[in-house]
Amino acid sequence: MALLGIDLGGTKVAFALFDDAGNIISKQTVALDNRRGSEVGKLITVNAAVMIASAGGQGDHVEAVGISVPGISKRDKGTVWAPNIPGWDDYPLMKEITTVTEQVPVTIESDRACYISGEVWKGSASGCRDAVFMAVGTGIGAGIIAKWEILRGAHDIAGAVGWMALSRPFKSKYTICGNLEYYASGEGIARQAADYVSKHQAYDGELTQGHRGKISTSDVFTAWHKGDEVATGIIQQAVEFWGMASANLVSIFNPEKMIFGGGVFGPAASLITEIKAEAEKWAQPISIRQVVFEPSKLGADAGVTGAGYLAMKHLESIRQGK
Amino acid sequence: MALLGIDLGGTKVAFALFDDAGNIISKQTVALDNRRGSEVGKLITVNAAVMIASAGGQGDHVEAVGISVPGISKRDKGTVWAPNIPGWDDYPLMKEITTVTEQVPVTIESDRACYISGEVWKGSASGCRDAVFMAVGTGIGAGIIAKWEILRGAHDIAGAVGWMALSRPFKSKYTICGNLEYYASGEGIARQAADYVSKHQAYDGELTQGHRGKISTSDVFTAWHKGDEVATGIIQQAVEFWGMASANLVSIFNPEKMIFGGGVFGPAASLITEIKAEAEKWAQPISIRQVVFEPSKLGADAGVTGAGYLAMKHLESIRQGK
Repeated sequence: MALLGIDLGGTKVAFALFDDAGNIISKQTVALDNRRGSEVGKLITVNAAVMIASAGGQGDHVEAVGISVPGISKRDKGTVWAPNIPGWDDYPLMKEITTVTEQVPVTIESDRACYISGEVWKGSASGCRDAVFMAVGTGIGAGIIAKWEILRGAHDIAGAVGWMALSRPFKSKYTICGNLEYYASGEGIARQAADYVSKHQAYDGELTQGHRGKISTSDVFTAWHKGDEVATGIIQQAVEFWGMASANLVSIFNPEKMIFGGGVFGPAASLITEIKAEAEKWAQPISIRQVVFEPSKLGADAGVTGAGYLAMKHLESIRQGK
Repeated sequence: MALLGIDLGGTKVAFALFDDAGNIISKQTVALDNRRGSEVGKLITVNAAVMIASAGGQGDHVEAVGISVPGISKRDKGTVWAPNIPGWDDYPLMKEITTVTEQVPVTIESDRACYISGEVWKGSASGCRDAVFMAVGTGIGAGIIAKWEILRGAHDIAGAVGWMALSRPFKSKYTICGNLEYYASGEGIARQAADYVSKHQAYDGELTQGHRGKISTSDVFTAWHKGDEVATGIIQQAVEFWGMASANLVSIFNPEKMIFGGGVFGPAASLITEIKAEAEKWAQPISIRQVVFEPSKLGADAGVTGAGYLAMKHLESIRQGK
């Protein structure tokens, strides 16, 4: 038995075949190369068909497929909203993928649901009943499992923690992405730096080195490592926001693990001790002592692994007649 | 078939017999009268035995018992932590109640789990799959159901939303009860008023009328109704905190209903439209359009009703061999 996990990201798609113990049998990654709309759908189906055929050729039939998408999987309609993929406002991915998967069951899940599921199967949340994955990349979202079940919400958009309110009073600039994201997403960190530089012409520190205009999140971390005070202030502010957000998730969910992943963790992984210290100030005092904070063990493979795991869980629920 | 719901509060215990459709067959309330420790346990068992006998005498046997407790039900140990009942740090309630319930299955649940369950059975959350009950009394807690299941957390203390971090930077005074509770619980509202009066000797507004010392939450609402500016400021601040907290719960859970109850709603129920307006500024913009904010329909009966419902669900799970 093999399981096919597919992880659609903003710039590439990863495909991996897993055995039922979660070991990767084979894996490949294909760049999106600015494809849009149905071109992205076609890229997924063509490569999925190749993976299924290659597994079958080795006598290892794919029995279930899971797809991680960077947005919302509307499970009742089989469509996907993925804001970073042009033309994917309500894309009929289920209809398209089943042209090649035929009778093999397919489940389509949000990337954050896949991240936490991957960590439960093969990563930092192994064996956990209650755990939270805070994914900090361009934006911020949380994958949450409570009593072994993914938290989906009434309309499949639970876990939108980038919108967490943490800093009163309200300012209208938060409406573009949410208060937490505004200060502590990858994009938010880069924007804080760009705002500072544009408002302080006299500043000629690390953040301006080698740049004429756009400052990336990575530039801010580099400047911080070099001791730049402005970058340090921006990173410290992000730590405060991540700590408060984590504290709230701990007080609300009383989880065993709080896992940090996404592109920013990465460079921010060394800050997890400081984030925990900030969270300890705010959180329910018993819950915060019962939780472990740690970085994602799977890193860039969390999504594809979770897609494989959710494919297997979906297959099990079909076989149990649920 | 009858179900016995028991709701232990800080000053009284309510007992109610329900039929399996959630109709109250009979109900009585007994004051705690400053009882402590095992005296409270005895009050519960004696009255439970009377209710069970009276139902049986009418040929309507009690088949399951549910108890709502104002604190944490440690389900694995059968003990209860209830901070407002002296001597209930780790009280062996399950052991005690089973001396009178004998073979009848008993479940002990936190009050917040009971509040939301009661609303699901017979109140504002009727038919909901995903809903949140924000209980604002002396403290603040949330009862949460996600996909029809109560959120408990790894150690039964999920929903501790009184600890929600909403107002940076951190101040050490928040460690007594949490940031949200500090400003927006019943006790927090009264404390804000008392602090103001003690610091402003020149103030002689409504909050000082008829008082020499202790100002209650109810006094603050009365002063607000009379147009007192200080009371108005305190209530508006509480609305901002309730709005931000609700926004966070909506972004995280994507619920169908956000229900407000506890002693403060009550007088704050007329503010729910303003709370929703504040939440709309902060929350995930799709989720906030999908949720209805409303007051508890059951009011003071939410706990005992939820205890009856959870008794029934517990019985069902035993019969299904779960």
